[in-house]
Amino acid sequence: MAIRAIFKLYSVVCIILFCIPLLGIQKASCAAELYEDEFESQALDPSWLIIRENQSDWNLLVHPGYLRITTKSENLWQINVNNKIKLLRGAPLGDFEVVTKVTYNPKQKFQQAGVIMYESDDNYVMLTRQMDDVDNVEMSRELSRMSGSKSVPTTLTTLYLKLTKSGENVTGSFSGDGNSWTTVDVVSGAKLEHPKVGLVGFNAQLNTTVDADFDFFKIGAGGEGMASVLEDFLELTKYGKAIHVMAMLMVGFGFLMVFVKRYGYGAVTATYIAVSIVIPYYMFLKTQGIFGEPAELKMDRLILAEFCAASILIATGAFLGRLKMSQYMIMAFMFVPSYMLNEWIMLDNGMGLIPKGLLIDTGGSIVIHQFGAYFGLGVIVRMTTREDFNKKIESDKISNQFSMLGSMVLWIFWPSFCAAPAEISKMPLAAVNTILSLCGATVSTYIASTMIRKKIAIEDMANAALAGGVAIGSSCAHTTPKSSLILGFIAGILSVIGFALIQPRVQRIIKGIDTCGVHNLHGMPGVLGGLAAIFIAKNVIPGLQIKAVIITFIIAWITGLAAGTVVSLFGYRRQSYEDAVEFIVEEEHH
Amino acid sequence: MAIRAIFKLYSVVCIILFCIPLLGIQKASCAAELYEDEFESQALDPSWLIIRENQSDWNLLVHPGYLRITTKSENLWQINVNNKIKLLRGAPLGDFEVVTKVTYNPKQKFQQAGVIMYESDDNYVMLTRQMDDVDNVEMSRELSRMSGSKSVPTTLTTLYLKLTKSGENVTGSFSGDGNSWTTVDVVSGAKLEHPKVGLVGFNAQLNTTVDADFDFFKIGAGGEGMASVLEDFLELTKYGKAIHVMAMLMVGFGFLMVFVKRYGYGAVTATYIAVSIVIPYYMFLKTQGIFGEPAELKMDRLILAEFCAASILIATGAFLGRLKMSQYMIMAFMFVPSYMLNEWIMLDNGMGLIPKGLLIDTGGSIVIHQFGAYFGLGVIVRMTTREDFNKKIESDKISNQFSMLGSMVLWIFWPSFCAAPAEISKMPLAAVNTILSLCGATVSTYIASTMIRKKIAIEDMANAALAGGVAIGSSCAHTTPKSSLILGFIAGILSVIGFALIQPRVQRIIKGIDTCGVHNLHGMPGVLGGLAAIFIAKNVIPGLQIKAVIITFIIAWITGLAAGTVVSLFGYRRQSYEDAVEFIVEEEHH
Amino acid sequence: MAIRAIFKLYSVVCIILFCIPLLGIQKASCAAELYEDEFESQALDPSWLIIRENQSDWNLLVHPGYLRITTKSENLWQINVNNKIKLLRGAPLGDFEVVTKVTYNPKQKFQQAGVIMYESDDNYVMLTRQMDDVDNVEMSRELSRMSGSKSVPTTLTTLYLKLTKSGENVTGSFSGDGNSWTTVDVVSGAKLEHPKVGLVGFNAQLNTTVDADFDFFKIGAGGEGMASVLEDFLELTKYGKAIHVMAMLMVGFGFLMVFVKRYGYGAVTATYIAVSIVIPYYMFLKTQGIFGEPAELKMDRLILAEFCAASILIATGAFLGRLKMSQYMIMAFMFVPSYMLNEWIMLDNGMGLIPKGLLIDTGGSIVIHQFGAYFGLGVIVRMTTREDFNKKIESDKISNQFSMLGSMVLWIFWPSFCAAPAEISKMPLAAVNTILSLCGATVSTYIASTMIRKKIAIEDMANAALAGGVAIGSSCAHTTPKSSLILGFIAGILSVIGFALIQPRVQRIIKGIDTCGVHNLHGMPGVLGGLAAIFIAKNVIPGLQIKAVIITFIIAWITGLAAGTVVSLFGYRRQSYEDAVEFIVEEEHH
Repeated sequence: MAIRAIFKLYSVVCIILFCIPLLGIQKASCAAELYEDEFESQALDPSWLIIRENQSDWNLLVHPGYLRITTKSENLWQINVNNKIKLLRGAPLGDFEVVTKVTYNPKQKFQQAGVIMYESDDNYVMLTRQMDDVDNVEMSRELSRMSGSKSVPTTLTTLYLKLTKSGENVTGSFSGDGNSWTTVDVVSGAKLEHPKVGLVGFNAQLNTTVDADFDFFKIGAGGEGMASVLEDFLELTKYGKAIHVMAMLMVGFGFLMVFVKRYGYGAVTATYIAVSIVIPYYMFLKTQGIFGEPAELKMDRLILAEFCAASILIATGAFLGRLKMSQYMIMAFMFVPSYMLNEWIMLDNGMGLIPKGLLIDTGGSIVIHQFGAYFGLGVIVRMTTREDFNKKIESDKISNQFSMLGSMVLWIFWPSFCAAPAEISKMPLAAVNTILSLCGATVSTYIASTMIRKKIAIEDMANAALAGGVAIGSSCAHTTPKSSLILGFIAGILSVIGFALIQPRVQRIIKGIDTCGVHNLHGMPGVLGGLAAIFIAKNVIPGLQIKAVIITFIIAWITGLAAGTVVSLFGYRRQSYEDAVEFIVEEEHH
Repeated sequence: MAIRAIFKLYSVVCIILFCIPLLGIQKASCAAELYEDEFESQALDPSWLIIRENQSDWNLLVHPGYLRITTKSENLWQINVNNKIKLLRGAPLGDFEVVTKVTYNPKQKFQQAGVIMYESDDNYVMLTRQMDDVDNVEMSRELSRMSGSKSVPTTLTTLYLKLTKSGENVTGSFSGDGNSWTTVDVVSGAKLEHPKVGLVGFNAQLNTTVDADFDFFKIGAGGEGMASVLEDFLELTKYGKAIHVMAMLMVGFGFLMVFVKRYGYGAVTATYIAVSIVIPYYMFLKTQGIFGEPAELKMDRLILAEFCAASILIATGAFLGRLKMSQYMIMAFMFVPSYMLNEWIMLDNGMGLIPKGLLIDTGGSIVIHQFGAYFGLGVIVRMTTREDFNKKIESDKISNQFSMLGSMVLWIFWPSFCAAPAEISKMPLAAVNTILSLCGATVSTYIASTMIRKKIAIEDMANAALAGGVAIGSSCAHTTPKSSLILGFIAGILSVIGFALIQPRVQRIIKGIDTCGVHNLHGMPGVLGGLAAIFIAKNVIPGLQIKAVIITFIIAWITGLAAGTVVSLFGYRRQSYEDAVEFIVEEEHH
Repeated sequence: MAIRAIFKLYSVVCIILFCIPLLGIQKASCAAELYEDEFESQALDPSWLIIRENQSDWNLLVHPGYLRITTKSENLWQINVNNKIKLLRGAPLGDFEVVTKVTYNPKQKFQQAGVIMYESDDNYVMLTRQMDDVDNVEMSRELSRMSGSKSVPTTLTTLYLKLTKSGENVTGSFSGDGNSWTTVDVVSGAKLEHPKVGLVGFNAQLNTTVDADFDFFKIGAGGEGMASVLEDFLELTKYGKAIHVMAMLMVGFGFLMVFVKRYGYGAVTATYIAVSIVIPYYMFLKTQGIFGEPAELKMDRLILAEFCAASILIATGAFLGRLKMSQYMIMAFMFVPSYMLNEWIMLDNGMGLIPKGLLIDTGGSIVIHQFGAYFGLGVIVRMTTREDFNKKIESDKISNQFSMLGSMVLWIFWPSFCAAPAEISKMPLAAVNTILSLCGATVSTYIASTMIRKKIAIEDMANAALAGGVAIGSSCAHTTPKSSLILGFIAGILSVIGFALIQPRVQRIIKGIDTCGVHNLHGMPGVLGGLAAIFIAKNVIPGLQIKAVIITFIIAWITGLAAGTVVSLFGYRRQSYEDAVEFIVEEEHH
């Protein structure tokens, strides 16, 4: 079986990956950086402000990884205000610096591109690579209607430009390597009260164009201002959400799975172990930058690690009770690189398949839920024995009551799950949308369960009511409350139909038992959510959502199959769904 | 039965109300508004600062909905500083605008009323409707001891006045309709470092008075300053509390009710459904402004919706186990308008019964707890069958343990319940007071339960320990920690007495079974809290608290009776307190 | 038995202490204080910034409670910039004041010490006790390269110095008593954009030194600036953590102890009562300042009270099920002063044993966990009967499932427990370290439990997995993620060994039954954490950590023994671990 050999190799790779981070892990750094755009995404970060835009004058596509501004016949100088392109954003209070790296090769007089601190067309300081009589870097200003400029000759065509504000002084400097800097000018008396900062490109010549390619744009804090305090608060705001997500992982997913009557210890212990392996492992791999950029040790990374843990717990639901505890551990090691591979493709332009920033999937309908579910289904193809097909998965009043507890904890904190990755100003909207979607799903679950089964199945209430949270994930920060409510309603019905009607067929087709019905709660509603964004979210590219759903399905299925195969080499449990196999279990006296 | 006909009509109205919001729901708006006072309350918002006050010169009562400033012989000009009335408040950092709408009809020279940006008596910019030689709007200033003014004639007597600060420029303008504006003057070089903004009225004539009626006063954000960041943080701070309240609704109220042995599924499912209907329904009705003003889609509205959900869960405690699941749904639709009617009267001067802002009920002892409890009691008059009187409500070790879990979750998050509606600076006090009141009630519950029953009843611990939270609701932001502790202690005893001694009598009188004893936990302690505010809270108007308690009792009782009647038309459950009637329940094997 | 008499006396003292706070409790105050350093610690608060330091010129040791700056041949005036010592820190935005109290006795011309508002060596305002021709207080300035000074004669050698900034005006004043102030000068046009503030000492004379002893340094808010808003947010950030800790106390510790099969009601009721007594009692004692300084009613105090409650719940784990409910109450009254005594020694330089601020124990491995565990062990020496040794502590599937719920809640919120006392900028690091340590312990618990016992004991998973949180407490804000993970791993193993192998021996030695095995979860891992800080935390003084562990052990053991003796006077329960003794318990039907 050649495929088995490949799968084994894959597991070896997973384990090697695991060893890498042990070699070294960076310390938490207190970033003084307030904003950075590396222009890796094909869509412009919406927080940019474009003044007098001419859409054709800039793009992110021609030279990927760069913002290209085409300088045409335009000027900002004195009475000229016909310039079309200026990308601006609010600057921090107090002192700060802005830096860019630009490639620009002006051929004629007054072609220029660079950075600006801008309050109005007649009140700004600008630093540009320019040509007048010679090639130079020029610092020019218009302040209180008095203008002036100073320049330092250079023939560099790729260079770093930096403006540093300190009180009313603005210093301009440039560098060929980003390390040693040459000062161009220090402008004093620059009364820029609420300057914006950004990128500019002009060209005083008619009928010529020159492209300026900006590699990045960065705002750094200067001095000990307000900015760092606000950053601390932002971290702490995210911290609150990180803890909420942790509650979902442990008490939420953990207890939701306790419904299996004689496998309560196993469910919570598996949860404990999976989370405890995935979080450090993901954080360490992320530091090393195996997939995507190395990240700083900030709350965002913890939240991403928790999302990965959520995804493996979803997968675990599929094969719950049929793996030994040690096999859950192996599974965790194999899951993380698989998940990160898909996450990298979806969110970080991995392999160039999905342009960065264009997939609408804030709360992870696709990346977290769909991936977890289909990975789990892949595993069960290998990890279901013939006996499992005949063994009823029993639950009782108490195990179901615990399951409802888990369900409610997931419901309660789901808004934080969806809001955590959103921009701060969109968090409230994302949270309210999530709540409304959950409300819709809860009501429709009751209705569907009653209609389809005559009596309500408590498993439906515990599971399908959450389908609203799964489905709204993609669109939560980009849609209306009304659409959220309706989407949740549909997701609830879909999920109940899944549990009541579709699951037996799926199980027969793939010859595997889906213990918790993750296909009904995470698989189908995840796909629904990913595709529903096409209809209810703004600025969505339909083809991209579809592509993402398909790629995720393929990667999840293949890596799931592989992981299942590897794990199956370690054998099967003697008895499924029985704590007593692995735990010291008290005799029950009645 | 004419009354039944009325009740049916009432239910139809409730359902029509439900349909209205489906027609349209506003999008979340990112409010640029930082402060608005519409002067609807009869008490001045305490955040106003009054300089050199003469109490008789202003009031909110003569012309309800307006702030009336009586302009008398006073002036601010140059060396005159004898003016008595100036309502001021801190302005935001950075750029902003202030707008008011005033009705003022000056008859003699130098009678004027309007808005001011004020740093000191000799450093201000002011825009007023004025009379000198002609009727006009005047913009006057004293800056660095240099003064000046400019005016534009107008005969409007009701007009909008606006001051806009942009850096060191202040622009004054007025409008007859709030849409098209006439600029009066642009003052430059206005170095107002920490200006206050507010309303003024002067009258240079002796022995005459003219009334200025201000309809509202509003501060709007200008530019992208600090203010909006802080506003984002404020929203996120409230978000944290909203999630805490959600935990109380679901795991708290939901599991507290699981104590009914064979009705665990029913209790949590009813909770799920009630919350999922009430939250969207309340938010939508609020958007439409059926009762009170349409509200923006911000955290405050979510929190208010959660409070309404808390109130229906309280009511549900009374009839738990005796309604079909579909009847809980109907109940939810009927409850929301009833609750909103009472809330509107209590908090929004509905029908002019309770002047806005004067009722002391921050954490809802009256509006949430008392209302919910007596609504529930109203319902059970209709929804208790003869069999129910003879049927023991059974609990066992495990159902009680779950109930204790619910109780503890309520205890833990109750501080957020009380602090959420408080001003940001009072949140810590409100939270600490709530904790101390809960501590008092917990200790006194143990003592009272032991003394009255010889042995501790676990139901007492689970329920009466929370009476401290109920009772402190009204006063939490207005009293001392010591009073809170004592009030909690009393509430705990009262609640235990309720459970042990009073409940059987109440049930006999109203011929209804109160499944969870909500009268003991929410009814009596709610009334206690509403009235205790008279003794322990500051600035309380005794008559108003009493009036509020009585009105709430009447509305809750009548709407509860009505809802009970309507719901009873849909029949009674075959067996009370039995999940098996509606749920698929596993056979229990022992 | 003389010892018994002493112990009884001790209990009387505890009860008297309890009565004191009832005499009066301060109101919550809205502190306008932004920073205060009383120089009680022997290490300089690291937030100070030292410019051109000469380490030998200042110390905190020679005159404890004071910062001594030795003024030597140095000057800041005009072109002199050779001064070595300036302790500076960032000032708040907007208006503020700085105050110090200094003892300084200059003998020769131009010896001076005092406070400074400093932007650069040529842009500052300074207020010093000085000698020129006469003894005086001098206010000097260099602003925009213009310098000047003014002085008021005084012969006070211990005096208060205050600089007040209001816009561009800075007022200097001094006082002998801190109440009546003499103005020295008002400097206008002080354009200090981002001034730092701090302490200075100079001496224009060669070869002489004079010591300046600063008693405290304080920054107060002036006006209504940004600062107070940020302070509100900081309080609310702490509030979030306080609620998390409350969840740990109630559902966490409470349900972790529910594992005792027939003592579920007792466990949660004891939790309820202990928390409800300890929190108000601790807060009140703290207000009165019996041990340490009286504290303001802010979130910090609530958090400290919760830590004390955590510690008694740890202790309770040792004797759980063998005390009557009333005895838990007595225990709570005795525990609080004992705990505060140890806390005072550890953190507030009580008895001068541990210099303030030098013990590394952010999350309380020593102060909270070790103390609670050994106090509990002290109690059980007295509170274990012979029957208890033969009585099996039974658990069953459901009681263990509840225990796992408690365990998970502790796990989830433990990051807040450790981060709450950390500086705001270190909170994210503390939280991530805590999570990694818990991950390490969870994985190692599974491994150790399987290896030692062959099958996994669910009690190990529920308890030992938390040992990572206990052990990381000391170092959480001072170590790396990697060290945290490893420490947690070791703690988990140690704890499992404790449960499986060490506990029986300890119980035999001390002749007491440790119901929940607190020695394994809190005792040993607490000591491990306290000592591990020596190896993994920065700036740790090894001897001090060891001393702290030893002192804590002694105090905990003696006060625990004493409390056990006192409580034993009230008798023993008829049956251990049986709810039915004290609670109304339903007959169980099967």
